[in-house]
Amino acid sequence: MSLDEALTSLRRGDFILLHDGGKRENEVDMVVAAEFVTPEHIARMRKDAGGLICMSINHGFASNLGLNYMHEILSTSQNFDSGLKKMIIGTAPYGDRPSFSISINHKDTFTGITDKDRALTIYEMSQLFKNNKPDKKEIFNSNFRTPGHVPLLIASEGLLSNRLGHTEMSIYLMKLAGLSPVTAICEMLDSQTYAALSTKKAQEYAKNNAIPYFDGTELVKLARGN
Amino acid sequence: MSLDEALTSLRRGDFILLHDGGKRENEVDMVVAAEFVTPEHIARMRKDAGGLICMSINHGFASNLGLNYMHEILSTSQNFDSGLKKMIIGTAPYGDRPSFSISINHKDTFTGITDKDRALTIYEMSQLFKNNKPDKKEIFNSNFRTPGHVPLLIASEGLLSNRLGHTEMSIYLMKLAGLSPVTAICEMLDSQTYAALSTKKAQEYAKNNAIPYFDGTELVKLARGN
Repeated sequence: MSLDEALTSLRRGDFILLHDGGKRENEVDMVVAAEFVTPEHIARMRKDAGGLICMSINHGFASNLGLNYMHEILSTSQNFDSGLKKMIIGTAPYGDRPSFSISINHKDTFTGITDKDRALTIYEMSQLFKNNKPDKKEIFNSNFRTPGHVPLLIASEGLLSNRLGHTEMSIYLMKLAGLSPVTAICEMLDSQTYAALSTKKAQEYAKNNAIPYFDGTELVKLARGN
Repeated sequence: MSLDEALTSLRRGDFILLHDGGKRENEVDMVVAAEFVTPEHIARMRKDAGGLICMSINHGFASNLGLNYMHEILSTSQNFDSGLKKMIIGTAPYGDRPSFSISINHKDTFTGITDKDRALTIYEMSQLFKNNKPDKKEIFNSNFRTPGHVPLLIASEGLLSNRLGHTEMSIYLMKLAGLSPVTAICEMLDSQTYAALSTKKAQEYAKNNAIPYFDGTELVKLARGN
């Protein structure tokens, strides 16, 4: 599937399927731009993908909000002892540091977990990004709560020059599409094998549902200017 | 559905549906004992329930491992500024403090998110509880990683005398069933309304799938000796 088709789908507020390449997690994620997220998208991700419904944001936005990675937060907490600090992931089995930060709920959610609630939390983060007021961080601090039900992922500073995860790839796609660098992503799982959904099965799902399937290694070539 | 039927189901390694009562979240969770969790349970929770697949543990076990609540961890981290600290949830809209602690993966997982991986993480925590060696905390620190893909929930110290959440109710049921106080729980969501699944629909699901539906307010009466 071509890059243009993927970008067109994202600009329309539709899903794409994104594969990170066989040498890493070898995982396919459903991806949608946060500025178009609806409860229907959330319901579809939990039913058809099945992983964690996470929200990726770019590094600059996270910095503006003062957000750090969870491993940094844990490593300097007095309520997390030295034994527990040994548990902090250096690199995952597939070679990268996790991109998790805190988990959040928008203040107008109730439990935080329903399709409506998660869609609101994710959509409102994209609106916060678009907000041109100087007090973006204050709005974040007063309009969102933690711990919540949507894990925030922070893309690496250098994007694809630094880390080749779905977090970075989805944010890079937003950049190419001219959309806000906030995405909802969810890993596709296989209920027959209890493993990640194979690329073959993901491609079949893509075809049957008219969703562009995109190979992230194409993005890496593009980012490197090849 | 009677308490005996619920306990029998849990002791067999089967699911129960647990409602926390109309005055709180008014939410039904799928619940299974961690010591019996299989990848099939995880797949079913993500497909039929759809919320966050969390692991609840009792307060004593968390204390033995040195684990605190996430709100306590965040409030004393140097990588979480004073503005962000304003976001820490005091009480949720339904009146309780969240019971979230850290999220974990067992060291033998790969991505951490597949049905196999989440089942392993949850099962291994139940085995750690059963372990009679004095160095339980050291085993925890060397065999699990954070941040991961299974959110840990810590039940209140006084269980149902303190907080009437699914976390406490599921742990109380383990106590009554004579099982390890570690459970996997997941909120049931409604893809038609994008809200929590109504008790009526949850009862229909329970009936159609021969799963005991249990009203948690019965437990509260029992805990109070009525």
